[in-house]
Amino acid sequence: MNIEIISTGEELLYGSIEDENGAYIARSLVENGFDIGRHSCVGDDLPHLTNMFKEADGRAQVVIVTGGLGPTLDDRTRSAVAGAFGKRLCFSKLAEKSVNDFFKKRGKDVPESNKSQMTLPDGAVCLENTVGTAPGFSFHTGNSLFYFLPGVPSEMRHMMASHVIPGLVSLNRERRDFFFLRAVSHFGISEAEVDMRLSGLENAFPGIKLGLRAVFPVIHVKLYARGGDTSGLNEQLQSAQDWVLDRTGDYAFSTEDRSLAEEVGLSLIRHKKTLALAESCTGGLISHMLTQVAGSSEYFLFSGVTYSNQSKVRILGVPEELLHDFGAVSEQTVSSMAERARIISGADFGLATSGIAGPGGGSTDKPVGTVFIGLSSQKGTRTIGFKQDYGEREKNKTAFAMTALDFLRRELG
Amino acid sequence: MNIEIISTGEELLYGSIEDENGAYIARSLVENGFDIGRHSCVGDDLPHLTNMFKEADGRAQVVIVTGGLGPTLDDRTRSAVAGAFGKRLCFSKLAEKSVNDFFKKRGKDVPESNKSQMTLPDGAVCLENTVGTAPGFSFHTGNSLFYFLPGVPSEMRHMMASHVIPGLVSLNRERRDFFFLRAVSHFGISEAEVDMRLSGLENAFPGIKLGLRAVFPVIHVKLYARGGDTSGLNEQLQSAQDWVLDRTGDYAFSTEDRSLAEEVGLSLIRHKKTLALAESCTGGLISHMLTQVAGSSEYFLFSGVTYSNQSKVRILGVPEELLHDFGAVSEQTVSSMAERARIISGADFGLATSGIAGPGGGSTDKPVGTVFIGLSSQKGTRTIGFKQDYGEREKNKTAFAMTALDFLRRELG
Repeated sequence: MNIEIISTGEELLYGSIEDENGAYIARSLVENGFDIGRHSCVGDDLPHLTNMFKEADGRAQVVIVTGGLGPTLDDRTRSAVAGAFGKRLCFSKLAEKSVNDFFKKRGKDVPESNKSQMTLPDGAVCLENTVGTAPGFSFHTGNSLFYFLPGVPSEMRHMMASHVIPGLVSLNRERRDFFFLRAVSHFGISEAEVDMRLSGLENAFPGIKLGLRAVFPVIHVKLYARGGDTSGLNEQLQSAQDWVLDRTGDYAFSTEDRSLAEEVGLSLIRHKKTLALAESCTGGLISHMLTQVAGSSEYFLFSGVTYSNQSKVRILGVPEELLHDFGAVSEQTVSSMAERARIISGADFGLATSGIAGPGGGSTDKPVGTVFIGLSSQKGTRTIGFKQDYGEREKNKTAFAMTALDFLRRELG
Repeated sequence: MNIEIISTGEELLYGSIEDENGAYIARSLVENGFDIGRHSCVGDDLPHLTNMFKEADGRAQVVIVTGGLGPTLDDRTRSAVAGAFGKRLCFSKLAEKSVNDFFKKRGKDVPESNKSQMTLPDGAVCLENTVGTAPGFSFHTGNSLFYFLPGVPSEMRHMMASHVIPGLVSLNRERRDFFFLRAVSHFGISEAEVDMRLSGLENAFPGIKLGLRAVFPVIHVKLYARGGDTSGLNEQLQSAQDWVLDRTGDYAFSTEDRSLAEEVGLSLIRHKKTLALAESCTGGLISHMLTQVAGSSEYFLFSGVTYSNQSKVRILGVPEELLHDFGAVSEQTVSSMAERARIISGADFGLATSGIAGPGGGSTDKPVGTVFIGLSSQKGTRTIGFKQDYGEREKNKTAFAMTALDFLRRELG
């Protein structure tokens, strides 16, 4: 079944926002065993919309459109469908009910402007919207089945799950091709290096497709397979994944699509250990990453984001002489920060960062991108340091934070 | 001039990543006074690519394509262009130079696989890539001018700036329509409420288009105008912006597209004040937001991310009785946290959060979404509290952090 996705809206066309809806619909189709021909994106100009709908008619069996169903004058999808396929806009009892119910549940009267949402092109089938004001609809042109969904992500997602996917499944009762995916996440290795190490994979495993995706600073290796033979494909994917792990070694931190912070958290739980941080250049980012994970209070006790030297001394208890003699960005200081964070919080591990995220603050000796990381336990304190400027403060902070977490991940083993 | 954008790649088609390149190219065109017809996105399947290029030929004057120029077998853009327009792939001296120079600068030999990047369709003009291996190219079909750019964002951006935009400007020397944009960012007010308050704007200011964009939890109001009369449009936009500010009042925190953390930082600098934090439920996110801003060390001294009760007592010095009598999530505890953070760090302001981000940890009395925020200065300590669950841990953390920053913004005035 050939399916196309059309996203509408000036904000998308002019790049003010990225097309998250299109990507979501694509993922949802793929996960349910459907293939996709293309996505398109147009503004809310009536002739453009009309042309786009006419073009897709017959080219694809199914067309899924988002946006332009709201109550304002800019919402022109209903009119464009009517124009493209020579239909009148008619009052729809179901659309009326969908809009009325939405406001009724919230104890509000229906505003005058929302009444435009009660009309649909003649022949359309209303798709109820229980989470927003805009009813969706489906429309069969004779050539193609169109679905029109709201542009508000939560409303669109709800309608995909409750109307579109079940509709497509019932259309296509014969055996579908299912889509399988395995992912291995890596840190500390470049995309080119991963690519080189994995060359030959597609020859060794015919039918498996390899995709690399870099989401700074993580390199995701994705293995795709498509077909009807569930257990055969799963076995083949498992062998391919083992082949990958064999070649990328301990740069791989997850085969479950977990974040590095999640993996470190699970490892701390497994080892029954607790963690405290002292963050300077990472400015709270490591704490933020760790506490994104539900249940992190089990192992994460404290982070001292000691941005000023005074707070390093007064709150952590780093000896003033260290800062004076070696500077804040030094092995000596970061080592003391890690140890002090561990001791004052009573944690098993202390992890500390000090460096220069930029754009200012660099020197010849310690340029932007310089960072030291300390890891302290009862066994002692070790440090690592490197210099690598990624050209953006945000990227440098992220790289520093991930390197610190990875240092701990490797220590935990 | 009618311009289309085509993004290629399976990862985009199947929604594994969003089309950031398409959005970037769109913004860059709009900012330079060019209009856009549509974006499309296809996979890396040769027939699909070939069809897409043939379709666009003649429909648009200019077509900008990204992706598929790498060295691997999946990189089929060169072949698709050759197929679509009946050209051979020929060895290009400039493409060879671009690839060779890239590796030479990095002191490396050219890998065998990269030699495929030295061929281009007959008649193409090579666009040098100084930041990556994939040379781009332009190709005129007789109907349309095509630009082919790499899919790696940094390489694509570089080529847009150094080749595409200058090329389009020289093609289009007559007066262009410029595009003007004003943005007002709001926090603490719903999109629906902003929409209601601003109804009538487009009538009051003909020629100005209003766009609302919600990027949780911020509501951006965007005012667009397009035309050749620079000073007239700017004046009109200024009046429209004043009209907006008059209606949204102090929910508006920036007219400069700055983050709330940036605005708070600027305000602290203006008032010559410093800040310390004690974060519980926000887990370092407020510190992270503040330290995303270059120069934040001028006013940001310290954050104690005191996730455990013990660290609240031992490190901040919150009285144990408070935790015992009122619990960690209480006005009394957060008030003490704010005061202690201020005192131990020597800052002018202490800002503290304690709440339940979920999904676990809620109770009947204090459900998920409950948060207390304390703000302490020499004048005393004030607290606010609310209960609002956004259904996701990450959203709750963000809402808590932004509410805390907004509390301080309003205090600073």
